[in-house]
Amino acid sequence: MKISLGIDIGGTNTCVGTVSADGVVLCKESFPTSDYKQAALFADRLAEAVREVMAATASNHANTAIEWLGLGIGAPNGNHCTGCIEQPPNLNFKGDTPIIDLMNARLDLPVIDLTNDANAAAIGEKTFGAAKDYSDFIMITLGTGLGSGVFVNNQLVYGHDGFAGEVGHLSVIPDGRYCGFGRRGSLESYCSATGIRRSFFETLSHLGGPTVLDHLNIGELTSKHVAEAAQQGDTVAKATMDFTGRLLGEALASTAVVTSPAAFFLFGGPVKAGPILLDPVRKSFEQHLIPPLKNKIQIIESTLPIGDAAIIGAAALVIQ
Amino acid sequence: MKISLGIDIGGTNTCVGTVSADGVVLCKESFPTSDYKQAALFADRLAEAVREVMAATASNHANTAIEWLGLGIGAPNGNHCTGCIEQPPNLNFKGDTPIIDLMNARLDLPVIDLTNDANAAAIGEKTFGAAKDYSDFIMITLGTGLGSGVFVNNQLVYGHDGFAGEVGHLSVIPDGRYCGFGRRGSLESYCSATGIRRSFFETLSHLGGPTVLDHLNIGELTSKHVAEAAQQGDTVAKATMDFTGRLLGEALASTAVVTSPAAFFLFGGPVKAGPILLDPVRKSFEQHLIPPLKNKIQIIESTLPIGDAAIIGAAALVIQ
Repeated sequence: MKISLGIDIGGTNTCVGTVSADGVVLCKESFPTSDYKQAALFADRLAEAVREVMAATASNHANTAIEWLGLGIGAPNGNHCTGCIEQPPNLNFKGDTPIIDLMNARLDLPVIDLTNDANAAAIGEKTFGAAKDYSDFIMITLGTGLGSGVFVNNQLVYGHDGFAGEVGHLSVIPDGRYCGFGRRGSLESYCSATGIRRSFFETLSHLGGPTVLDHLNIGELTSKHVAEAAQQGDTVAKATMDFTGRLLGEALASTAVVTSPAAFFLFGGPVKAGPILLDPVRKSFEQHLIPPLKNKIQIIESTLPIGDAAIIGAAALVIQ
Repeated sequence: MKISLGIDIGGTNTCVGTVSADGVVLCKESFPTSDYKQAALFADRLAEAVREVMAATASNHANTAIEWLGLGIGAPNGNHCTGCIEQPPNLNFKGDTPIIDLMNARLDLPVIDLTNDANAAAIGEKTFGAAKDYSDFIMITLGTGLGSGVFVNNQLVYGHDGFAGEVGHLSVIPDGRYCGFGRRGSLESYCSATGIRRSFFETLSHLGGPTVLDHLNIGELTSKHVAEAAQQGDTVAKATMDFTGRLLGEALASTAVVTSPAAFFLFGGPVKAGPILLDPVRKSFEQHLIPPLKNKIQIIESTLPIGDAAIIGAAALVIQ
């Protein structure tokens, strides 16, 4: 039985899982990333977690010989070309962390590979999800940030330095919102989950309210609240989702002109809002596409399971 | 002696040339594209021109055996994947013209290939120009339109349908200028040669004048006049070139996040303006790049000869 390991390093939690050859998570565990301020100590804990899920998987399949294919790591700013997590804005260990070297020093596995979380999701969608039959597509992940992974001719595009596929940093509104990098008007600051939260407040400033979300603390509002309120017909929330969808559709139409993908796959919590987000995305996308591309490019919901997608995607790095 | 043929189909003129294995145009001729309203008659004239330059080249090298490698065609909306010129906005023959089939029916050459003019320029730069040692780069051509050709892993990106590399249609100013497609705010409508002309009038509207170009007829103003006036220190023209450069730099910084090229190569008349355009491009580019890409990506002037670049690029299609 061939099994791979996938690691999803997030700002809050790090998850480790074993994944079967058909993309099912067999066993997983997680621990808080933010407990670790030093990369070496984090790597110690991560290697321990890897050994634990390997042992648990082996004991669940006691009568089967397991061939361990290797370990794939997905991390924010994880660079396939250098093997380092480079200057991650949301992790406690700063600078460049040579995570592949650190793990190779602690584990004996045939392959250890690294990419960023959105690239891992794209590889997961290509290997196990709805993108199986697509040679040219772009994966868009909507979460705390807005990530992307670009496939051209059946290959993930890394670019000259490993930093291709950062569509979240497309400039969409000149002199618009500030983002984590101190730049302004990036797609991510509008259409990620946190962007939707910000757009709710912008929309509230325009429309004045009231809204069914008035009872919430400002600090606790999330994109999920906004999506649910929109589905219940709340005016401010509906206008927020509509604004988000229109802007995302326009940005995807701009992105399409670079590599002309056959499809965009959308992944993440906000996508679960369904038509209230996806209808304006698709409408605005078609409106803004150049004529030679109109009615050719699909916008498709990811079929990766949200909870396990990052682990599956990271494991797919090794399976590919 | 190995020789290729390159054809550059432009809205005004069509040029045909023979090109040596080291990228030198040996012999060429041109005729007005706009004289032909029917594709078949155009193809007749084009085949005649091909035979003429082949004969002239052969008679200039009477003592040498010539191996004809094939014919490459660069045309606006030329689609490598279908072999058709598809709905070209600036040509008299409308709809889809199956130019490869038309030429194969008229000529006996080992290969006849087609791509759009900007892709041909990119292949020319890669084969004979400054991009020789670059595996990941983007060619930007500034002319009547703003075209581009994207290389990833040493291969030109065609996308799922042949329409990749249309960076001129990136949206840069929401609800901005109208373009030929009826869309608004595209990069092409600001930073092509015709975009620079429009920006001059916008800048004149802001600053009010006077300008050293006051004596020109409105209809005859070109980007070349603007560049020359800027070099002479004219306030309106300088502000126009600065605006163009800043916007182009920002758009290239946005484009860079999709495929992370090692360089952009800029080609076309406006690029000859030199530092008055390129300084603000480079400054704005670095300002708007995301931190992981800063100080890594070069902006380089094309080394292809402007007059022959399109023929050389088309011929390189066959040499590649």
